[in-house]
Amino acid sequence: MIYNKVALIGLGLIASSIFWSAKRGALAGQVTGYARSAATRDTARRIGLCDTICDTAAEAVADADLVILCVPVGAMGAVAAEIAPHLKPGAVISDVGSVKKAVIEAVQPHIPDGVHFIPAHPLAGTEHSGPKSGFAELFDNRWCLLVPVEGSDAAKVAELRAFWEGLGSNVEEMDAEHHDLVLAVTSHTPHLIAYTMVGVADDLRRVTDSEVIKYSAAGFRDFTRIAASDPTMWRDVFMTNKDATLEILGRFTEELFALQRAIRTGDGDLLFDYFTRTRAIRRGIIDAGQDTDAPDFGRVAGRK
Amino acid sequence: MIYNKVALIGLGLIASSIFWSAKRGALAGQVTGYARSAATRDTARRIGLCDTICDTAAEAVADADLVILCVPVGAMGAVAAEIAPHLKPGAVISDVGSVKKAVIEAVQPHIPDGVHFIPAHPLAGTEHSGPKSGFAELFDNRWCLLVPVEGSDAAKVAELRAFWEGLGSNVEEMDAEHHDLVLAVTSHTPHLIAYTMVGVADDLRRVTDSEVIKYSAAGFRDFTRIAASDPTMWRDVFMTNKDATLEILGRFTEELFALQRAIRTGDGDLLFDYFTRTRAIRRGIIDAGQDTDAPDFGRVAGRK
Ligand SMILES: NC(=O)c1ccc[n+]([C@@H]2O[C@H](COP(=O)([O-])OP(=O)(O)OC[C@H]3O[C@@H](n4cnc5c(N)ncnc54)[C@H](OP(=O)(O)O)[C@@H]3O)[C@@H](O)[C@H]2O)c1
Ligand SMILES: NC(=O)c1ccc[n+]([C@@H]2O[C@H](COP(=O)([O-])OP(=O)(O)OC[C@H]3O[C@@H](n4cnc5c(N)ncnc54)[C@H](OP(=O)(O)O)[C@@H]3O)[C@@H](O)[C@H]2O)c1
Repeated sequence: MIYNKVALIGLGLIASSIFWSAKRGALAGQVTGYARSAATRDTARRIGLCDTICDTAAEAVADADLVILCVPVGAMGAVAAEIAPHLKPGAVISDVGSVKKAVIEAVQPHIPDGVHFIPAHPLAGTEHSGPKSGFAELFDNRWCLLVPVEGSDAAKVAELRAFWEGLGSNVEEMDAEHHDLVLAVTSHTPHLIAYTMVGVADDLRRVTDSEVIKYSAAGFRDFTRIAASDPTMWRDVFMTNKDATLEILGRFTEELFALQRAIRTGDGDLLFDYFTRTRAIRRGIIDAGQDTDAPDFGRVAGRK
Repeated sequence: MIYNKVALIGLGLIASSIFWSAKRGALAGQVTGYARSAATRDTARRIGLCDTICDTAAEAVADADLVILCVPVGAMGAVAAEIAPHLKPGAVISDVGSVKKAVIEAVQPHIPDGVHFIPAHPLAGTEHSGPKSGFAELFDNRWCLLVPVEGSDAAKVAELRAFWEGLGSNVEEMDAEHHDLVLAVTSHTPHLIAYTMVGVADDLRRVTDSEVIKYSAAGFRDFTRIAASDPTMWRDVFMTNKDATLEILGRFTEELFALQRAIRTGDGDLLFDYFTRTRAIRRGIIDAGQDTDAPDFGRVAGRK
């Protein structure tokens, strides 16, 4: 057991996975939960999510040793303001937001003296959301980035690291600025691009939606999975990680234009070389255990 | 049994999957195979791919009722020229190329009188290639598009349709122009975009390759799978489906700029609406059995 009492604020995919995984690892004496809507709290109670579901955030965080904010990035500041007066001295408050600079700016001012704010971000997710979408294995062998702020207490950081390791993660520390750039590359820009491509397909007159759907197996359907993620979460990500996303988007457009030009001018060698170079990264990802080499992810063929 | 003798020219992912699947369905009395390199022919013999592996294409197609060209799109013309004199009268010659207009232009002129050319394209694949990558289930419940040319014999088209249905596919007919546009949307442009994004990530100074690899689970790794496909195949696709790809790329860039502008100006509503709209297509794909709803494709967490 690492913490006596853990409070989860927001009860979606990430919070519910934290709960099931903390239970699996017996990492917490007790876990309380709170979500803003009665519907979510009811669902949570019905499926046994958390030991206690509270009707107010204040109640949920009372006496908690660790409070994790599991709400969309744009809601972190308001939630922090709401719970701040109820935090116990010496408690750790953390979050799981996909963006770190903006969350720190929004949350930090509300943290009372004697409470330790240690931002975090587990790099694990699926396209599903809500209290029923979580599962204990979500974080297994995935990375969790801790982003300690100035003056973070080393012992408290070590404890939080142990908690995430207990959830199955590999843990690394990183500063907020670098975190936001790395994520712009590995997550935020790919998501924007996938959303865009799916939007284009949806919008064409000359190719019907039903054709797009039927013939999606040739590559497009992977984009649709990425683009099926929660709209609120992703709106907030782009609103708050604006600079890094725009920087990477700029680089992306530059490269895309170079490849587009090669297609237009018939420069097959340039394309071939480019397509050869990108294979090495895939190899690295499989070797690092971050994906499987099963063809097509080992998808089973659909029902007839 | 639909054909007495089937010849496969080129022995990569698609040809080997056709063989294993034809065997499973007992669709052919005999299957011969040919690949240009001795290494591939040796591998094929060693793993029992095809009933007979021939050392020349001429030998492989002799007396065949169905010949399927399974080489990169850019090689179709030369291969057709090579085998044309050896085709038996009444035979059907087909292909599996990912582009149809260019393949028809390249192959059609070589087809002798009395031989039936019926282009086809199975919309199924993985990121792997070569003679060892095929498997019998590849085409199950995937679509195969037949693209009959002017004057195609209806009985021969029906036979080829039955063959592909025997391989597990659903079959539809389409004209070449529309095929190339649909594929530009569902496959070619997504691949180009994925290659571009992986190239950008590989190229950044401020984010190392090892960071990209470690933290890929947040979305990027799906792009790397797509961008791990065979460089020759994809060079040929873009060289030969230039117009449709450039058209869709133009639409893509237009949309991307609109979303980029929304990020820059902080227009969260536009992003939210866009991200909501794209979810419907995903639903359609799952309902159509073209993907599974298992979170994260049911990927199992990597080894520790
Ligand atoms: N999904 C991923 O792949 C992923 C991965 C890593 C990190 N994250 C981060 O984890 C956080 C939660 O994501 P998730 O996927 O778990 O989301 P989710 O499944 O959509 O759940 C979000 C939760 O936040 C609550 N919430 C939403 N808007 C709120 C607001 N304005 N004020 C208070 N509560 C609000 C929701 O309450 P109701 O149910 O009552 O509406 C719900 O309980 C986000 O910051 C996200 O960036 C997500
Ligand atoms: N992979 C997919 O996802 C997919 C899906 C649908 C359709 N297709 C289409 O299917 C066709 C084959 O793709 P694949 O994935 O099976 O490819 P693959 O696994 O890379 O195999 C290609 C085969 O073509 C031979 N070949 C390559 N260049 C040649 C040339 N210049 N002249 C003669 N033979 C040549 C190779 O011979 P060696 O082994 O001797 O080098 C190999 O046997 C392509 O037209 C592709 O567009 C692919």
